Amino acid sequence: MPKRNHFISQLAHVEIYTPHLEETVKFYIDTIGLQESDRKDNSVYLRAWGEFFHHSLKITEGPEKGLGHIGWRAESEEDLLEAVEFIEELGCGEGWIEGDIGHGRAYQFRSPDGHLEEIFWEVELAAIPEEEKSRWRSRPQKHPGGGFSVRRLDHVTLWTSDVQRHREFYQKLGFKHNEAILLDEPVNKEIGGLLAVTSLSHEVALFSLPPNHPNESNMNHICYAVENREEVLDAADFIKEHGYKLDMKPSKHAVGEAFYLYALDPGGNRFEIYAGSPLYFAPDYGPVTWRVSENPNDAWSESNILVGDKKD
Amino acid sequence: MPKRNHFISQLAHVEIYTPHLEETVKFYIDTIGLQESDRKDNSVYLRAWGEFFHHSLKITEGPEKGLGHIGWRAESEEDLLEAVEFIEELGCGEGWIEGDIGHGRAYQFRSPDGHLEEIFWEVELAAIPEEEKSRWRSRPQKHPGGGFSVRRLDHVTLWTSDVQRHREFYQKLGFKHNEAILLDEPVNKEIGGLLAVTSLSHEVALFSLPPNHPNESNMNHICYAVENREEVLDAADFIKEHGYKLDMKPSKHAVGEAFYLYALDPGGNRFEIYAGSPLYFAPDYGPVTWRVSENPNDAWSESNILVGDKKD
Amino acid sequence: MPKRNHFISQLAHVEIYTPHLEETVKFYIDTIGLQESDRKDNSVYLRAWGEFFHHSLKITEGPEKGLGHIGWRAESEEDLLEAVEFIEELGCGEGWIEGDIGHGRAYQFRSPDGHLEEIFWEVELAAIPEEEKSRWRSRPQKHPGGGFSVRRLDHVTLWTSDVQRHREFYQKLGFKHNEAILLDEPVNKEIGGLLAVTSLSHEVALFSLPPNHPNESNMNHICYAVENREEVLDAADFIKEHGYKLDMKPSKHAVGEAFYLYALDPGGNRFEIYAGSPLYFAPDYGPVTWRVSENPNDAWSESNILVGDKKD
Amino acid sequence: MPKRNHFISQLAHVEIYTPHLEETVKFYIDTIGLQESDRKDNSVYLRAWGEFFHHSLKITEGPEKGLGHIGWRAESEEDLLEAVEFIEELGCGEGWIEGDIGHGRAYQFRSPDGHLEEIFWEVELAAIPEEEKSRWRSRPQKHPGGGFSVRRLDHVTLWTSDVQRHREFYQKLGFKHNEAILLDEPVNKEIGGLLAVTSLSHEVALFSLPPNHPNESNMNHICYAVENREEVLDAADFIKEHGYKLDMKPSKHAVGEAFYLYALDPGGNRFEIYAGSPLYFAPDYGPVTWRVSENPNDAWSESNILVGDKKD
Repeated sequence: MPKRNHFISQLAHVEIYTPHLEETVKFYIDTIGLQESDRKDNSVYLRAWGEFFHHSLKITEGPEKGLGHIGWRAESEEDLLEAVEFIEELGCGEGWIEGDIGHGRAYQFRSPDGHLEEIFWEVELAAIPEEEKSRWRSRPQKHPGGGFSVRRLDHVTLWTSDVQRHREFYQKLGFKHNEAILLDEPVNKEIGGLLAVTSLSHEVALFSLPPNHPNESNMNHICYAVENREEVLDAADFIKEHGYKLDMKPSKHAVGEAFYLYALDPGGNRFEIYAGSPLYFAPDYGPVTWRVSENPNDAWSESNILVGDKKD
Repeated sequence: MPKRNHFISQLAHVEIYTPHLEETVKFYIDTIGLQESDRKDNSVYLRAWGEFFHHSLKITEGPEKGLGHIGWRAESEEDLLEAVEFIEELGCGEGWIEGDIGHGRAYQFRSPDGHLEEIFWEVELAAIPEEEKSRWRSRPQKHPGGGFSVRRLDHVTLWTSDVQRHREFYQKLGFKHNEAILLDEPVNKEIGGLLAVTSLSHEVALFSLPPNHPNESNMNHICYAVENREEVLDAADFIKEHGYKLDMKPSKHAVGEAFYLYALDPGGNRFEIYAGSPLYFAPDYGPVTWRVSENPNDAWSESNILVGDKKD
Repeated sequence: MPKRNHFISQLAHVEIYTPHLEETVKFYIDTIGLQESDRKDNSVYLRAWGEFFHHSLKITEGPEKGLGHIGWRAESEEDLLEAVEFIEELGCGEGWIEGDIGHGRAYQFRSPDGHLEEIFWEVELAAIPEEEKSRWRSRPQKHPGGGFSVRRLDHVTLWTSDVQRHREFYQKLGFKHNEAILLDEPVNKEIGGLLAVTSLSHEVALFSLPPNHPNESNMNHICYAVENREEVLDAADFIKEHGYKLDMKPSKHAVGEAFYLYALDPGGNRFEIYAGSPLYFAPDYGPVTWRVSENPNDAWSESNILVGDKKD
Repeated sequence: MPKRNHFISQLAHVEIYTPHLEETVKFYIDTIGLQESDRKDNSVYLRAWGEFFHHSLKITEGPEKGLGHIGWRAESEEDLLEAVEFIEELGCGEGWIEGDIGHGRAYQFRSPDGHLEEIFWEVELAAIPEEEKSRWRSRPQKHPGGGFSVRRLDHVTLWTSDVQRHREFYQKLGFKHNEAILLDEPVNKEIGGLLAVTSLSHEVALFSLPPNHPNESNMNHICYAVENREEVLDAADFIKEHGYKLDMKPSKHAVGEAFYLYALDPGGNRFEIYAGSPLYFAPDYGPVTWRVSENPNDAWSESNILVGDKKD
């Protein structure tokens, strides 16, 4: 067990592209319960009610759906500089940018497949109007009471051409490899991975794009957490009442044991709502290994979309 | 709105047949949390922890799965006698029996398709050992703490050759017709109905057996209620951990808005676990009408088993 | 067990008085989640999102807080007429009124202590705008998503000078006497009672006003139901975040086993939020008897406000 | 923001003393749902069903209740050695011990007040019989189904003579100072602190023993986590049904926003059950500051035991 890098303290934000900016923003505000922090050029910055930072989702208009970039916050200014030095040694650095609304200068780098990421230390806290501040200080604002509202960004799941290579990339950056999904014997190819830098199940997951998924970008989905499974169930009603379809109705993953649902936002990006995954504190917890035939996506279903069954 | 009969106070018990008595009893005790009240001949009498009467489920060994009989409790001795007079006028009476373990003399009758039913007044209360009695008197015993335990019998769902005819039969007995499922325009045939004698969504539901269901008996399922949706989710885990498959994984019915799961017991009878349906107090609430194409069985799924999609 | 009257199908509405009409209406709308159905003279009519009728709460400006009247809906037009005949025989009838916004002609009567009540059959259903109608027909409208929203009126609790006398009065009207609270041996005086006309724990509760409660009206509280205990907990936060105090923080009653909280509305009327009480189907279920020293109000506390301990 | 030490990965176990070993063990097994892993001399080793290590609670017979020691697991073997070097520099080291059942060699040290602690790397995993293993690999075993069962050790809360001094001690070891409780202006004395080494609210909390608490040891309580608030409510019933009293009934802390209850075990040690506290990822999140008059212990109560009101 080598000493683990602790450059990164958390997943701070994700940028996604959408061909339909206003409809997409409306979906995340009216149906998912995010709040608009700011707008600039063709981007809108959103945050969940339980988040202290300026934003966790940046939605940018573009010709195609997909991942813009992933933003990681460092553990400290000193950790940021050490991380940059380390990333430059890895040879995947893109250089410093001045920052963005909501955070200070950031160092950009790319995953082996070219997913754009950045690390930074300075953050701007959300500006909460006095009357929206909560009497409970572990929440940055009162619960907005907007029907259904996710609490915080949880993770991002990427499509990759080579799971093992990306998994090793994140491990170098200090991520724990908590869970792995393999093709069945005798092939054993690594087709999925869950990696975490905190006590969460994962902040980044990696999957091999299966054949016959022509409509996918470089990102499988982004995921926000809610308090409990009841809220996932309420979200299902709320999304349907707003006229959207569910991409996968509420169920439980075998991997990570989270209770979930998926919807597609109006730009076509997949969005997950999530609760109930256990916390993993042991640095040597994983990798816990699943076979694709064990239906790691759905703990309760007898059909298995990973081996070609119909979804839902 | 004619004055409604109030002969019946509640669904008291259901008898089911099974070709595998011991495995079936073991399923209901170890996995569903029922408790054995008594045994006699080739029958085992079970009750849920939250039930005050001697039993709510009688499992009898027989060559085929299916419904044995349905037991309704009268509102009073006087109501019992009035009900018998009324049933005899309807011409479907079978006559008095002496009773059974757990209740007094009962009058038997048959639905138009011949489902055997009975009505009685005298009941024996469950004999709860002193050390299992609860400090809270609205529960007959302490929560057994047996992992997962259903609380009480909720309803029974029958296959019928003619839903309208059976629906009218139960309405005569005092049931409210809360919800109806019809084939789409222009056929409009009534293929499902939910009827209640209390504030519950239904104590009896009626469905037309669709073609290509060779493996069904005269009963679609029996259903027990739990406290909340969390317990349905816990039940899904518990049933899978015990090595059984789910027949339908947790989801929400559009009809009656109950959160549910289905399993098959070892004798092949379908068993539902159920929470969250609203109460209906208005005698003129229904019939609320659903079309089969509206997916009344599953509020969240885009596939629709009522119109031929694959289950799960 | 005499045959029970079935005149009444449900508790339909309660009228309360308040010296501060607008603040009181604001509390019930913004914090409790009721919706305004109509206004007339110095009264505002409100309903909860899950209710089908025009209103369940009528708030009328008056010099003092307290009960205006209780509105019971009959089982049918015929039952209404039979009820009126019966009430006139009891000698407590006040005569017919033309009705009110939301319901047809009503017959008024008084409890032994003079609490005003009425019974009617014709009701007006809530007028729900098309865009607020739900895809699920067991709910009259979409969940409003307003943070926290109670679902339906549950019961009203009255202060009475003589619990036994009032209990017998409601029993004559067809109520089941589910639970009783007595002073300890050897006094045994009946000081509390819960009575139900449906499967609920109670639609009306009766208590003897203890000494030293100078600030009480003829009504202890009104109570609305929510879906589950989680919503009671969320309500506690919501009420505090809106700047109101809790009168009693969330806990569980031993009587009826409901999970509850109490607040005082700006007019001084006590308001309960409630979930989780079991349903009682057996006409001979009660009376289950509690002693005041058994702390029937609080299942978990070692202090007992019924015997003089400090509240909260 | 100096770079933070990452010696410690988690709180691994706590040892408590009890004058009544068998009654105490019985309480933790039958009522709290822990399982016995082993026994040696006058100690019993217990773990919760969701824990992967050999034990999280060691109960040792002794003349007085109180803390035996706290066991911290290192991030790696290399981190263990660095931690030892660092602790020796701090001058509070006690030296290596050979280990104990369930873990390898450990280095012992003492807090300023002398609370005994240890850090180690090698752990023994729980030996789960094959038939108790779960199909879901993020749980070491099937949910035991034993009525109520806590999931995992969460934190330990100590009485200290000087909160600031102890708080600085844990910060040196790498803990984040998430929340602070101060006496009111103008005294401002630090009388409480919550510190975390993971994303949890805290693994160790520190409080100044108020006057007039003659019956307290050097430890305020140990706390185990459950999945959600529903389980805390179920635990309240379960503990009462087993004949124990609650020390504080279910409510919500303002500090850390956890939903909790407290009981006293038969040896007199206080035990907390806990759910719903948010996760804190930002290294610069705290210290969030509360005044004692703000009732940080109880978010919903108007009485305040921290300023002398009666408990419960």
